[in-house]
Amino acid sequence: MKSRAAVAFAPGKPLEIVEIDVAPPRAGEVLVRITHTGVCHTDAFTLSGDDPEGVFPAVLGHEGGGIVVEVGEGVTSLAPGDHVIPLYTAECGRCKFCLSGKTNLCQAVRATQGKGLMPDGTTRFSHDGKPVYHYMGTSTFSEYTVVPEISLAKIDPAAPLEKVCLLGCGVTTGIGAVHNTARVQPGSTVAVFGLGGIGLAVIQGAVQARAARIIGVDLNPGKFALAREMGATDCVNPKDYDKPIQEVIVDMTDGGVDYSFECIGNVEVMRAALECCHKGWGESTIIGVAGAGQEIRTRPFQLVTGRVWRGSAFGGVKGRSQLPGMVQQAMRGEIRLDPFITHTLPLERINEAFDLMHRGESIRTVIHF
Amino acid sequence: MKSRAAVAFAPGKPLEIVEIDVAPPRAGEVLVRITHTGVCHTDAFTLSGDDPEGVFPAVLGHEGGGIVVEVGEGVTSLAPGDHVIPLYTAECGRCKFCLSGKTNLCQAVRATQGKGLMPDGTTRFSHDGKPVYHYMGTSTFSEYTVVPEISLAKIDPAAPLEKVCLLGCGVTTGIGAVHNTARVQPGSTVAVFGLGGIGLAVIQGAVQARAARIIGVDLNPGKFALAREMGATDCVNPKDYDKPIQEVIVDMTDGGVDYSFECIGNVEVMRAALECCHKGWGESTIIGVAGAGQEIRTRPFQLVTGRVWRGSAFGGVKGRSQLPGMVQQAMRGEIRLDPFITHTLPLERINEAFDLMHRGESIRTVIHF
Repeated sequence: MKSRAAVAFAPGKPLEIVEIDVAPPRAGEVLVRITHTGVCHTDAFTLSGDDPEGVFPAVLGHEGGGIVVEVGEGVTSLAPGDHVIPLYTAECGRCKFCLSGKTNLCQAVRATQGKGLMPDGTTRFSHDGKPVYHYMGTSTFSEYTVVPEISLAKIDPAAPLEKVCLLGCGVTTGIGAVHNTARVQPGSTVAVFGLGGIGLAVIQGAVQARAARIIGVDLNPGKFALAREMGATDCVNPKDYDKPIQEVIVDMTDGGVDYSFECIGNVEVMRAALECCHKGWGESTIIGVAGAGQEIRTRPFQLVTGRVWRGSAFGGVKGRSQLPGMVQQAMRGEIRLDPFITHTLPLERINEAFDLMHRGESIRTVIHF
Repeated sequence: MKSRAAVAFAPGKPLEIVEIDVAPPRAGEVLVRITHTGVCHTDAFTLSGDDPEGVFPAVLGHEGGGIVVEVGEGVTSLAPGDHVIPLYTAECGRCKFCLSGKTNLCQAVRATQGKGLMPDGTTRFSHDGKPVYHYMGTSTFSEYTVVPEISLAKIDPAAPLEKVCLLGCGVTTGIGAVHNTARVQPGSTVAVFGLGGIGLAVIQGAVQARAARIIGVDLNPGKFALAREMGATDCVNPKDYDKPIQEVIVDMTDGGVDYSFECIGNVEVMRAALECCHKGWGESTIIGVAGAGQEIRTRPFQLVTGRVWRGSAFGGVKGRSQLPGMVQQAMRGEIRLDPFITHTLPLERINEAFDLMHRGESIRTVIHF
């Protein structure tokens, strides 16, 4: 079938709005009509050409919501009309990882997904007869997309897709990292590095976890008002100090924070986030995605004296099991999504969403089709 | 009083066996007659001059056992005749760290201890009228030493001091890291980097924790026999492979180990130990002490995909609370100490213990007075 899509034909170039061909879903696959999608920094990272896994041409997008149109052979958990959120972290329920009870990193479709292919090694997208690659197993920048059944969370059809699409990545990543990865305890002290969408979601998670003190850190003081509104108790700008920010935070907190989160993808900030943790028990969680080949570093003494260094992907959330419940939380107002949505644009203007993001003027732009 | 002691007068020089003066214990202090002490790599590290905290002249030694001779004012938990193990990690029971329930890193005497001084900022040792510094709050290379009350574990007087002195550092560090820091679960897979005293103690802890597979790693295959005897199921020598040892272990274990331990102090090995852990849940614990200024590094992707990087000091063991129980375990044979003791020497020959260690010929040499 024909579908309007924003295609990334080459790295570093704007997306082009074109009509592509979408082949029917094969066994275990589902055709979804995307109604809304967020635009995330990871899309921009891949579009820039810096992502070593990036393949072109491709349909980017991984933070969407939509409605099932058609299911392929053997698909039993979904039917046309179901509302879904595509998952870049699948949940097959059967692989070693799903069965471990220790991680959300299902590996069932990881190998092909990383190459921009469906699990059978082919693509469902084409343009002018030439294949167009998938992206993160989701490709939500197309009105119609094909996704493996195990990469779709079925959600309450009453949920507003124009909002809950954000649970497909950023908001879930931040809130989940607080609860599933760091397991922030009531009364604790938290530092959040980077007050974009992920950082604001971490703040929201920390408020839910009843953290006593939540310190937001950003070089742009323009972000402090919303961070405070979301629940940050303190906001600090590293530019305001003539010593490293980790020392500033250690001084502010009588020895350091109980938990810190890096929500940027900057390896120097990751070091600061670790080193601002309290000796003996402080735990730092890396959420941001660093550039290819970049490395974190610190003195091992930081760990030997009791700090712990972790990371989180998709907030440790198992998409099919847990995302429907988070959608319910959003519907009850226990997860706030409105503050994240600073702009809405039609698909045709999607490149403006990237411009807004690069200029730091948006948290999330939601695209509608 | 007079005391025979091995004094480190200058970095890089052999210890000198001399008679020093030991002042009586002041308030909160205890005079201990050391009967036995192990010689540990950390003593050699400080003696070499590479330890930035090292001060000279000093009485080194931190792995000892002895008998209380005299207690200072206000000391209530110990009396002359009590058998004790000196603790380089004190346990005051009252500081923020002790009360946290999360760490063994009591900070009550940390500041002065790091400067080679007693808590009141002075020394009890002198030689020819000039002050001699303390070391790690223990200074077990002297027949008589003065130690804070909070830095002494009172143990069963029936325990053989010539063996249980090893619980003052190495054996406790390795076994404790398995149980308190990593919390190794039954049935899991463990990699141990470095098969010296700490590594063998980790193996012993992993056996106690009922690990299913214990992989020992060392460049010296001469260490494999004892490692196997202690419970290692596999031993690998990185020299036998033309790819990085982390890849070798990932291949051996269908994706990596559940837990790894670095027992050397080499930052490159620390990286290998992290990277041989299983995606999604593998946890690496740094035990070894790296040289001053050295840094660990890895790609943050290693953590974002679920690995955890930790460290452990004195095995996470609270000395006054937990060491007496470990002594009991050793007396019941649940902790084996004999395999660690490869040599015994009188104090006068202590420099030979350092030579044996540097040549890799000893695990532990126990010095008797």
